[in-house]
Order: sequence, then C-alpha cells, then structure tokens
Amino acid sequence: MSSSNQDDEIFKALSSPVRRRILDALKDHPQTTKQLCSLFDGLDRCTVMQHLKVLEGAELVIARREGRERWNHMNPLPIKAIHDRWIGPYAARAVDLLDRLRSDLET
Amino acid sequence: MSSSNQDDEIFKALSSPVRRRILDALKDHPQTTKQLCSLFDGLDRCTVMQHLKVLEGAELVIARREGRERWNHMNPLPIKAIHDRWIGPYAARAVDLLDRLRSDLET
Repeated sequence: MSSSNQDDEIFKALSSPVRRRILDALKDHPQTTKQLCSLFDGLDRCTVMQHLKVLEGAELVIARREGRERWNHMNPLPIKAIHDRWIGPYAARAVDLLDRLRSDLET
Repeated sequence: MSSSNQDDEIFKALSSPVRRRILDALKDHPQTTKQLCSLFDGLDRCTVMQHLKVLEGAELVIARREGRERWNHMNPLPIKAIHDRWIGPYAARAVDLLDRLRSDLET
C-alpha cells in the first residue's frame, strides 16, 4: 500500500466518531469483540465488526484470535506518524509549551 | 463548538490529500495564499482558497492579513491533541521504542 493510500485509509477510519470511540476504548488495553459490543450497546454486533474492519484496514487495530475469542489491540504507530508528519521530535517541545500557554490562558 | 464537533471538523479537514499537502507546505513556515497557489499549480486559486477555508474551520490553519497579503500559519495544537488522545505523554516513550523496532525490522 502506498503511503498516500495508507494515509487515506487512516483518515477515513478516523473520520467516524464511533471508530474514534472504539480507539478510545482500546487505548489502555485490548478488548475482545464481545466486550466492545457491550460498550456500544446502541449498535448491533455486525455494525461494530464493520467498524473494526475499517480500523484493521487502516492498521489502527490489530486483531489476534485466541481460542474462540478475538482480541482487538490498538496500534499507536499510525497516530505517532500523524504527529511526526506535522510536528516531529524537534518541534514537540515548542508545541508542548504553546499548549500549556493556551491551557493557562483558558483557565 | 463542542469537542466532538471540533473533532469532526479536524478529521474531515485531514481526510483530503490536498489539504494534507497544504499542511505539509505550512509545517516549517507560514506562506501567503499566493505562494500556496504557486505550489499547487494544478489547482485554481478558488479551489486552494476553499481548502484553506476548511482547514481554518478546523483551526488547523490560522490566517493573518498583513497589508494586501494573507499569511497562512499551521496551528499544531489539533495535531498534538490527536497524539495526546490516543498516546499521551506517558505512553510516548514506549511508542517511540516500538517505532524504532519496526523501523529496524524493516531495514
């Protein structure tokens, strides 16, 4: 997959509020598909699985099967790549300071 | 603007390859709208300005008028917010190590 196509997949995956919430749920620890479905009880299992498929296509989620369960892990590398593309390690400190300044001004 | 609506604006803005390339062009230094148009000579001025308007709506670009020129600055804070939402300062080092491991394995 070319880098530009992969970017398209990533930003398409992140364009959905439900998919962003799935990533929120996976941020701290992996979850089985069943556990995820119980978190999104307004959505049927099939819809949750379709969203997971889009996230997998973008490599934002990596799934591992263990016995009868499917464990979904968040892959942070595409998120890091977004940060590195427009901020990068050298500007990160300056942006941290700017963020703190904004936060101080808002409170 | 609620946080969720603002997220929608940001990811909608980033979903376009042209808008991502505009941010690439603004990453290191601000540019006038005229300079940006000359970088994207396959697009007419009106199209470039429409893309800039979407980026401004998402607060990814901040424009300042100086005399007859309009200077477009990239605002890195929404990009930092994406990183902080799913990686955050505590996990950043672990993700750096993971990224280096991936890069070593690929070369």
